Amino acid sequence: MQKTDTFALVGGDRRQAFLAGLLAEDGYTVIAAGLEETELPCRVTGCTNPGQAVALADWVVLPLPVTRDGTALNAPFSRTPILLSDLAESLTAGQRVFGGNLPPAFTAALQGRGVRAEDYFAREELAILNAVPTAEGAVQLAMEELPVTLQGSRCLITGFGRVGSALARLLRAMGARVTVAARSAAARAGAAALGCGETDMAGIGGERYDVIFNTVPARIFTADLLKRLDRNTLIIDLASRPGGVDMEAAAALSLKTVWALSLPGRVAPKSAAAAIRRTLLTMLGEVAP
Amino acid sequence: MQKTDTFALVGGDRRQAFLAGLLAEDGYTVIAAGLEETELPCRVTGCTNPGQAVALADWVVLPLPVTRDGTALNAPFSRTPILLSDLAESLTAGQRVFGGNLPPAFTAALQGRGVRAEDYFAREELAILNAVPTAEGAVQLAMEELPVTLQGSRCLITGFGRVGSALARLLRAMGARVTVAARSAAARAGAAALGCGETDMAGIGGERYDVIFNTVPARIFTADLLKRLDRNTLIIDLASRPGGVDMEAAAALSLKTVWALSLPGRVAPKSAAAAIRRTLLTMLGEVAP
Amino acid sequence: MQKTDTFALVGGDRRQAFLAGLLAEDGYTVIAAGLEETELPCRVTGCTNPGQAVALADWVVLPLPVTRDGTALNAPFSRTPILLSDLAESLTAGQRVFGGNLPPAFTAALQGRGVRAEDYFAREELAILNAVPTAEGAVQLAMEELPVTLQGSRCLITGFGRVGSALARLLRAMGARVTVAARSAAARAGAAALGCGETDMAGIGGERYDVIFNTVPARIFTADLLKRLDRNTLIIDLASRPGGVDMEAAAALSLKTVWALSLPGRVAPKSAAAAIRRTLLTMLGEVAP
Amino acid sequence: MQKTDTFALVGGDRRQAFLAGLLAEDGYTVIAAGLEETELPCRVTGCTNPGQAVALADWVVLPLPVTRDGTALNAPFSRTPILLSDLAESLTAGQRVFGGNLPPAFTAALQGRGVRAEDYFAREELAILNAVPTAEGAVQLAMEELPVTLQGSRCLITGFGRVGSALARLLRAMGARVTVAARSAAARAGAAALGCGETDMAGIGGERYDVIFNTVPARIFTADLLKRLDRNTLIIDLASRPGGVDMEAAAALSLKTVWALSLPGRVAPKSAAAAIRRTLLTMLGEVAP
Repeated sequence: MQKTDTFALVGGDRRQAFLAGLLAEDGYTVIAAGLEETELPCRVTGCTNPGQAVALADWVVLPLPVTRDGTALNAPFSRTPILLSDLAESLTAGQRVFGGNLPPAFTAALQGRGVRAEDYFAREELAILNAVPTAEGAVQLAMEELPVTLQGSRCLITGFGRVGSALARLLRAMGARVTVAARSAAARAGAAALGCGETDMAGIGGERYDVIFNTVPARIFTADLLKRLDRNTLIIDLASRPGGVDMEAAAALSLKTVWALSLPGRVAPKSAAAAIRRTLLTMLGEVAP
Repeated sequence: MQKTDTFALVGGDRRQAFLAGLLAEDGYTVIAAGLEETELPCRVTGCTNPGQAVALADWVVLPLPVTRDGTALNAPFSRTPILLSDLAESLTAGQRVFGGNLPPAFTAALQGRGVRAEDYFAREELAILNAVPTAEGAVQLAMEELPVTLQGSRCLITGFGRVGSALARLLRAMGARVTVAARSAAARAGAAALGCGETDMAGIGGERYDVIFNTVPARIFTADLLKRLDRNTLIIDLASRPGGVDMEAAAALSLKTVWALSLPGRVAPKSAAAAIRRTLLTMLGEVAP
Repeated sequence: MQKTDTFALVGGDRRQAFLAGLLAEDGYTVIAAGLEETELPCRVTGCTNPGQAVALADWVVLPLPVTRDGTALNAPFSRTPILLSDLAESLTAGQRVFGGNLPPAFTAALQGRGVRAEDYFAREELAILNAVPTAEGAVQLAMEELPVTLQGSRCLITGFGRVGSALARLLRAMGARVTVAARSAAARAGAAALGCGETDMAGIGGERYDVIFNTVPARIFTADLLKRLDRNTLIIDLASRPGGVDMEAAAALSLKTVWALSLPGRVAPKSAAAAIRRTLLTMLGEVAP
Repeated sequence: MQKTDTFALVGGDRRQAFLAGLLAEDGYTVIAAGLEETELPCRVTGCTNPGQAVALADWVVLPLPVTRDGTALNAPFSRTPILLSDLAESLTAGQRVFGGNLPPAFTAALQGRGVRAEDYFAREELAILNAVPTAEGAVQLAMEELPVTLQGSRCLITGFGRVGSALARLLRAMGARVTVAARSAAARAGAAALGCGETDMAGIGGERYDVIFNTVPARIFTADLLKRLDRNTLIIDLASRPGGVDMEAAAALSLKTVWALSLPGRVAPKSAAAAIRRTLLTMLGEVAP
């Protein structure tokens, strides 16, 4: 049985299928399982038995997120549910598993079997690379909803982390007028260094914006703040659960709000796959701790 | 009867409604007719009788295009059809009519009644301003269809007029790799001056592109050329009728093709209205010939 | 005597020397004369006798401008003066001469001998290509003189032709706040389409600018207008003779003024040479009229 | 004696003079000492006695760097040398001193007198803001030295910290082709996210670059690496002492090298002053630890 340099990709969506194709183009042997309902790229071998697929591989790549309910693999394109516990039992000591947002219990179960489990979503380089499709996805949503061009539009970005700064750069390059609301002196200096206007959270309500992009995972847009916004303002919430906007209050005020989660995989699955591929290869190149 | 500084806007779509609102914000009296099925901005007076509306106005603004069939006004939000001939009869000597793509017969009929008819769509400044929403609309379509981010993607633009050059600038600012196919030495120098790659039409088939934007209103993408394209290439045709792509051949080859007409009014009706407003005010400021 | 595909380059400065090198890299035989005081690129044959050099060539390239006094060739790196009349006498029917800003009398003299004389500086593509080094040169001058970064600075550009629009694009990309003063509705629409502010000439005096770039070859900056400018404003005049600024009045007001002529050859001689090379090759590829 | 809200600025160069002007515009009382040889902005009170100036102030601002020799204040525009020990003796408990690169001994001496000494150069926001004039200064140097335009030029940046990434952004916006050499996976992902090419240090010698910008404060450009570079490559070293280039080896190879230190204060003293002003006001707004 020849296992050297074989990847098994199990579960996931179009992004995972693209990832399979990219790794195959790199020259690896790639087996895909739990992706029956989507077209596999050429040079990728489909396998209907996930347990068999992982048994054949050196490296197993699970999707991002690995699971949504803690029990079954996140595998929307699989004909049958795949249980994490079944997957674990198919793995043997010495194999390596890569997953996005690995649940601690599953990681522990794998380590108990001598299988090394690593979370690619925890890697800084993936966060950096994902900021690009996230920013583009946010721009796409704004274009779809706004009656004005982004060029010349007034945009507010709350938060100035990776996504906030990538979005600020992109919107500025497109000719938008960008204001950043951030708390720390360093974040605000960063916004100024990109040529953006600045405000603190208290100043948000005073200005008219065509669109507000929230990147802060905290309930900033309370009913109180929402009331002070212009009624035509579009709000795009890029923050992960629980999100930054009081959606009920926004609805009551007829403020158009879009909660945009997991943009990379949705708007640019092939680029998102390329980012994961790059991260995986870096992780493979690193010496084991 | 006080007619001074009164606009009547008749027919059209959301763009025309936004235009009514912008002119009202400028302080003009604005009467809108044939827009019953959309919400009118505040300060705009709705009128159910188009003939009466135009009779009350100094300046009558008809939509872009004025008509689609040569007989009835282009008025998708009107409850009843509005005939160009009826409109003409409501107008009297000394009034001015502005329309987009005015049919020559209608212009002649108006002039026969002493009504000055002018085509705002023939104005250079409108073409320049409209290139921005057209380029953004093309980018939006590409984002919606492509599995990759525009950043780093390989884009081909055929033609380097107003739309082609605006699109090249925008895509470059977004980090795309842009090649321009154009015939004239000046157009190609212009592409080089923006930092784009260049090719002639013969060279199109040789390279792999993620997306091709056609701006040339001539059947460039023949079955023969389409056959030489990578099968994953997305084609966005921005050229007016008859378009630049052999759509049947593209379909037979399973090439994804989008024919994108009238983008400004569709993707950014408010910005498109602002461009018409600006053009109208310039035309009003010019001395009559 | 093998003359096929031989260029003779006579006179000129570093740009002409770079041009010789680029044409030699293209595979042409290149003879250079009147460039003794600069280092010639490899593969270029130096020749101390201009008459002999041109006699050996199919195509003769003279500098930009061909002459400064109407009599002698513009040849600052030549050990001895070269007279246009001597050059003309060395040429014979069938040869082609390319020069920048060819004086009509010289063109006529050449045509009288059956020599085809063409002006590459009159070509639109060269004007387009030269706008890039001109804009970069203007930016360099501004950087050298201003105590502030261009990012965030307030810039005014008068005129919106090739140089004005290239400069507006570059300054915007660098994060400057750019206002354009232009007369025509189309030029102002073009400025708006780039996201620049707009003003008419009358509005120039009312605002504070860190730097004003003039591209209009007319005396716009009269003593009267200069008086209304902030005393710290830097003025960079890119207009050809007689320039757009009343230099005496500016000096009397202690306004810092730089008259920046012929920037491409001065700030980026190699890029300027590449632009001429490209233009020459296009001209050679065109069928004779 | 009314001391509330009074700044004393002592020593420094044009940047310090601009800083005095900006703080005066903010409404503070500003006394300047040790700046006799430069013109003071209006509303700034000059004082020939540094000891008296600091005695009158709530807040004392010393230049960046505070000293070059450890003994005397860095005061190139002062008529007489100012000793740090004299300054310390003029200060009394409760006053606050702000300096750039404060020497530990001086800080200790001040604290011994009950004077709070803080280093504004250690603040993250200043480093972020200073990256803009540093990047612009590097671009200016490259423009001055290169025979080509930055648009289309091949640039290498070594290191991808604050300066490296700001420079990459600026050069990309100007149309340059930018490659980044960096070690960490995160830095390289950041370069990719800006659309730059990437290389590792070993790959530097293999490509031809018009200009290399070094930002890494380590001897990367050894004689060995320098030998492998194209002889026309310009090297701009932005790294602080001891710099990243073996200058002797570069000279022996006739490689043009510019060691560019302290760019913000040199190329954009007013913007550099604005960055310090902003940092000082943030520091003043923070609660004492």
